[in-house]
Amino acid sequence: MSAPGTPAAAGMPSEAVAPVVGLDVGGTKVLGVVLSGGDAVLAELRVATPQPSTGPPVGRVAADQDRSAVVEALALLVRELQREHGPGAVGMGIPGMLDRTGMLRFSPNLPAAAGGDVATELSERLGGVPVHVDNDANCAALAELTLGAARGTRTALMVTLGTGIGGAVIVDGAIQRGAHGLAGEVGHMVVDPSGPACPCGGRGCWERYASGAGLARLAREAALAGTLFGAVALAGGDPELVRGEHVARAAADGDVGSLAVMESLGWWVALGLANLVAVLDPERIVVGGGLAAVGEMLFAPVRRFFAELVEGGPHRPEVPIVPAELGARAGAVGAALGARAAGPRAGSAG
Amino acid sequence: MSAPGTPAAAGMPSEAVAPVVGLDVGGTKVLGVVLSGGDAVLAELRVATPQPSTGPPVGRVAADQDRSAVVEALALLVRELQREHGPGAVGMGIPGMLDRTGMLRFSPNLPAAAGGDVATELSERLGGVPVHVDNDANCAALAELTLGAARGTRTALMVTLGTGIGGAVIVDGAIQRGAHGLAGEVGHMVVDPSGPACPCGGRGCWERYASGAGLARLAREAALAGTLFGAVALAGGDPELVRGEHVARAAADGDVGSLAVMESLGWWVALGLANLVAVLDPERIVVGGGLAAVGEMLFAPVRRFFAELVEGGPHRPEVPIVPAELGARAGAVGAALGARAAGPRAGSAG
Repeated sequence: MSAPGTPAAAGMPSEAVAPVVGLDVGGTKVLGVVLSGGDAVLAELRVATPQPSTGPPVGRVAADQDRSAVVEALALLVRELQREHGPGAVGMGIPGMLDRTGMLRFSPNLPAAAGGDVATELSERLGGVPVHVDNDANCAALAELTLGAARGTRTALMVTLGTGIGGAVIVDGAIQRGAHGLAGEVGHMVVDPSGPACPCGGRGCWERYASGAGLARLAREAALAGTLFGAVALAGGDPELVRGEHVARAAADGDVGSLAVMESLGWWVALGLANLVAVLDPERIVVGGGLAAVGEMLFAPVRRFFAELVEGGPHRPEVPIVPAELGARAGAVGAALGARAAGPRAGSAG
Repeated sequence: MSAPGTPAAAGMPSEAVAPVVGLDVGGTKVLGVVLSGGDAVLAELRVATPQPSTGPPVGRVAADQDRSAVVEALALLVRELQREHGPGAVGMGIPGMLDRTGMLRFSPNLPAAAGGDVATELSERLGGVPVHVDNDANCAALAELTLGAARGTRTALMVTLGTGIGGAVIVDGAIQRGAHGLAGEVGHMVVDPSGPACPCGGRGCWERYASGAGLARLAREAALAGTLFGAVALAGGDPELVRGEHVARAAADGDVGSLAVMESLGWWVALGLANLVAVLDPERIVVGGGLAAVGEMLFAPVRRFFAELVEGGPHRPEVPIVPAELGARAGAVGAALGARAAGPRAGSAG
């Protein structure tokens, strides 16, 4: 299968299309893939995301040297991926408010890269290889729309639960970018104005509750309250060291306290989805990002609480809430598909 | 000016197009207008909305006799409007979850009408006059898109602040209805899960804070706290009797306590608009409904708080927040435009 409008879709033997590189740049790590013309993942690599060196992360726009460190790490990753598979175009998904010119205006979860045009800087660092950039959740949505769980939908919603929460709004079968390219920032819906402070500068944003960061917070609270024995044991006995992974593993082993935390996480995920369904009425919701990998342990409570929370639940057709078929690779694969569709033009999809 | 695709737009002398009736059916009152082929309002009438006779209003679907009472009141209003202006088609806007078949599935603010097809029932009561029905906020958006403050926009948001809050999402210059016709129910975004109970069965919905009902609640709280002298005086001295109108009038006279309540209302309006802008990135927000009539006293704090609350405010192009040009008539005029565009077909726009 291949993206509409690519040479492969136009009838050329798909393996004749050059492989492309896709990067999913997250707040904590970067996933890079090489995607063949036939949409097979030929290679996959992960590196840590360089963190801002100076200044408070809240609401800041990065210094040039911070962004340089990110671009350099991305360039190294691309060269490593290209060593075996040849120099193809590069696609990149990044979180935050990316405008139609490719400028990352604001990025609470990737402050080190904000304030510049990362795609152009990466292209220069790579000696002019075309680099195509889009919002990370838009990339995931493109992958799911082309190859995955949103195939054939006209009106759908993609939500990625990672360090933060990304979103993409699909209307008339296309990803909607809004008036300035900034649509889909669903993680920053405020769901509790008296809630915890968010790196965006706000308070009580949805992603404070329903993301990896939200799970970590719920886990820490439960651990300090003394209700999370299994997960605390996995963390070496120190409640301060409990992370989301420990809770997910302990819950999978049936630890009651950890299952209660996953239920609580599911409630918050469902709350935000219910808000979005009230506004958009999609035919389907696709949930991706690292957190979706925990599977039914999360999806079951999400579906149950969603039915309770959505307006007029009993009077409304069911909205299927399904995992991203491309899993944790959706963002990187979608970034590669975006680069392939853009062809030799570098720049932004916004 | 006239709706695209109408005979008037196609070049016929606009006054040759028969007048149509538009009804805006709210939770507390119904506004009916007669709209000429040249888009002039020829007549205007208001009646009270019949209230449900039995059972608790929370989450209920109306008994047939309740809906009958509403339909009868609408039929009387239409006949009165048609007496002078002749029998034209009828358009109707109603609040709540109206599906693509015209069935009002769920309506927290118009429970007396839920559970049936009000348009078909009204058409039968009127001896077969075509009746076209749409969500009330979609009607207001159609009026603003055709004749008012949203003219020429591609991506916009319409919000109506009345008894509850209605919404319409405009993408690619058209009102988006979602997969099942239920999009735009923005009033039921939850903005505080521990907030007051909502007639929808939820808790802390946006319309509990930022609608006419929200203003009444804020006013009552301030009155009982003893900070609302001017408005309490207008209410005859009894804090229990303070309503939104008293606050608006006292605020217009400079009453400090009432101005503080309007600020608080503005903060809540801004919070929900900021949520919607994060998701949709519209080029413009049009605010209508009865509450918009208080004007700058509300719009000034809304704009100020919106700039603070929206994600990445300083890094984002300004989103103008403007009053509906058709004011409190937007819903009724849009309902009439919908009926004219539908022509002799009765039914739903969903």
